[in-house]
Amino acid sequence: MAKPNVREQLIAAGLERLHAAGFNACGVQDIAEAAGVPKGSFYNHFVSKEAFGVEVLERYWQAGGAARDVLSDTAVPPLERVERHFDGLAAAITADDFRGCLMGNLAAELADHSRLLRDRVAQIFAAWARAIEGCIRDAQRAGQTRAELDAAALASFLINAFEGAILRAKIDKDGTAFAQFKATVFPLLLR
Amino acid sequence: MAKPNVREQLIAAGLERLHAAGFNACGVQDIAEAAGVPKGSFYNHFVSKEAFGVEVLERYWQAGGAARDVLSDTAVPPLERVERHFDGLAAAITADDFRGCLMGNLAAELADHSRLLRDRVAQIFAAWARAIEGCIRDAQRAGQTRAELDAAALASFLINAFEGAILRAKIDKDGTAFAQFKATVFPLLLR
Repeated sequence: MAKPNVREQLIAAGLERLHAAGFNACGVQDIAEAAGVPKGSFYNHFVSKEAFGVEVLERYWQAGGAARDVLSDTAVPPLERVERHFDGLAAAITADDFRGCLMGNLAAELADHSRLLRDRVAQIFAAWARAIEGCIRDAQRAGQTRAELDAAALASFLINAFEGAILRAKIDKDGTAFAQFKATVFPLLLR
Repeated sequence: MAKPNVREQLIAAGLERLHAAGFNACGVQDIAEAAGVPKGSFYNHFVSKEAFGVEVLERYWQAGGAARDVLSDTAVPPLERVERHFDGLAAAITADDFRGCLMGNLAAELADHSRLLRDRVAQIFAAWARAIEGCIRDAQRAGQTRAELDAAALASFLINAFEGAILRAKIDKDGTAFAQFKATVFPLLLR
């Protein structure tokens, strides 16, 4: 019988192991060991390693919810909400030794091999972009950014550019890419 | 004795296999089979799979040389050189079923596990950024883009943002991210 706390231990340990090692470099045995549970119990909780990967991704996205709260904080001017949001993510990735974004890492490794995972990352990125699009529309209404920009396209561009900065920071093992993102994007957006 | 054509066959087959499968999902056996050579000959030519990965990366970067030629074509206005360069890369990635940039894919998978590979990708990205920086300086001298922008930081931002667009296109399996990159970046840069 599947025990809920075993499931939870597997997801928590798996999030850490998949982030540290990558998906293919990390076996079910490694994950079960890190969780302190028997390997056999893994398949009581997850139909496949792929399905497990999607659950881990879900957990990673949910854990980032606090970093997205600022996007809906209407007490803060809209472009500043976006800037604070990306500053918060950059600080978290820096504190995590530039291991990168688990969604971006898994997508780079698996997008062509797991339709399940690819579709979920696509949905998550679309939801993330919509939250930023709302801020851009608010900024446009307030006359703080260029009204002629397509808010949805710009929001999507921003998260893609930020994911690219995360990857570069992972390669360079420093935060230069985050500083360049911030220094380039925000002055250009201000009207 | 190491035969040069075997080395060449391994690199050509490895480039295709590593791009298709990823590094950890693809064994030396798979690569040797794809090259049509005995597995044992692999280690006559490469000290390790990691060293082989760096050679494959090198080949990928060199094969992209033609796409960078436009960056030094002074018959073309400088910002248009940059735009044509990225258009060419986007078209190539689209024609390749959005499997992404091999450098970005390998970096996402291995940057935290192979210092050799990480350092080489860092050097390549820095060289790529310098080629674009030259175009931005030319555009600034010609008064075609904002003189106040830091050309080196902007060039680096552009390649990072484009790598992010490549990753998003790999996830979405369409070219929307490339269109958004183009539609956002170039109008904002024009003075």
